[in-house]
Amino acid sequence: MTEPEVSTATLNRLSIYLRCLRELCDEEVKTVSSRELARRYDLSATQFRKDLAHFGEFGIRGVGYDTCGLVQRISQLLGLERQRRLIVIGMGNLGIALTRYFSGDERKFRVVGALDNAADKIGLAFGRWSVEPLSHMKSIIAERGAEIGVLAVPAAAAQATYDLLVEAGIQAVLNFAPTRLRHDRRVPTKNVDIGVLLEELTFHLSVGRGRS
Amino acid sequence: MTEPEVSTATLNRLSIYLRCLRELCDEEVKTVSSRELARRYDLSATQFRKDLAHFGEFGIRGVGYDTCGLVQRISQLLGLERQRRLIVIGMGNLGIALTRYFSGDERKFRVVGALDNAADKIGLAFGRWSVEPLSHMKSIIAERGAEIGVLAVPAAAAQATYDLLVEAGIQAVLNFAPTRLRHDRRVPTKNVDIGVLLEELTFHLSVGRGRS
Repeated sequence: MTEPEVSTATLNRLSIYLRCLRELCDEEVKTVSSRELARRYDLSATQFRKDLAHFGEFGIRGVGYDTCGLVQRISQLLGLERQRRLIVIGMGNLGIALTRYFSGDERKFRVVGALDNAADKIGLAFGRWSVEPLSHMKSIIAERGAEIGVLAVPAAAAQATYDLLVEAGIQAVLNFAPTRLRHDRRVPTKNVDIGVLLEELTFHLSVGRGRS
Repeated sequence: MTEPEVSTATLNRLSIYLRCLRELCDEEVKTVSSRELARRYDLSATQFRKDLAHFGEFGIRGVGYDTCGLVQRISQLLGLERQRRLIVIGMGNLGIALTRYFSGDERKFRVVGALDNAADKIGLAFGRWSVEPLSHMKSIIAERGAEIGVLAVPAAAAQATYDLLVEAGIQAVLNFAPTRLRHDRRVPTKNVDIGVLLEELTFHLSVGRGRS
């Protein structure tokens, strides 16, 4: 499969469309026009049509979009045609919150391991799994088919843990540690830096203008 | 102050430069060239110079950048010339994790309130504050000068809580609830949707190519 040229912004909008359309599909709304979708979810109808046009023809003129069909197509586009398996590393409050969050809806993601090196955490029961030491990382990835590592360790431990994950064969990383990782170019890595996001808000606060 | 035309990507990079430069300033490194900075933190020197050029002249040719001076200038650009006050709404694991995170470094942000409506949470001690009911929101914002609301409530409660925050006079919102908010255009609002971020990774996984 060759990769279409898709921006991060487009990908993130596709995820949002997917969530909206899934809600409609679950409610047994069979078809929806771009205008109805836009009105209900405060989206741009033009942007929606433009984003989908990247990937081919989906709607039927005068009828609209088949909601459940489009859920399936966007899921495929986003690589969600099958459930993806995660491990969470770092069982502080954030790691626990993330593990619970991912365990809430297993249609797309499933946590198959929770890791931490702290003696007082190892063995604590956690949904289906109990907390395991980082030395089990490689076998957990191999035996349970974990593809994505969610990094919720302190900044000081982030690089070493990231390197361990890559060496252990993880295929992608979502990093919450507030630090700049030297990342392996072969492993898709996404940084979620809460401080950076807050600073984006303070900029807009200081100049007195809103943003979405 | 008029707002320079700055993209979200530029703003987010400025935050990262700020963190790197602050580390150098704390280590008493007096000056740094864009090349040294890029090498140490895995940044692009060209991008760094270009981003700063938006805002005027900062470096001295042949000498480099005054690290501590640049920390101060970027802080001003980002509206961080004074500490910003936050309230966190929703004291589940994520809310607790976020409150602890923000309390870790009070140079820029300070939590002045932790709110939840659950009877078993109200009154729990939390750093300097104990958990208070949402009915206190308006007085907390007014009396403690909270500017930013961090929303960590379940998706189903997000819109109503957001509307309450706006009505209570909050000036900006960082939303972690995985839902599409109808937001007030006058209130800068930033959504952090962990599911959307994971789906960006699965896209790259499915097409087998890395991204930073």
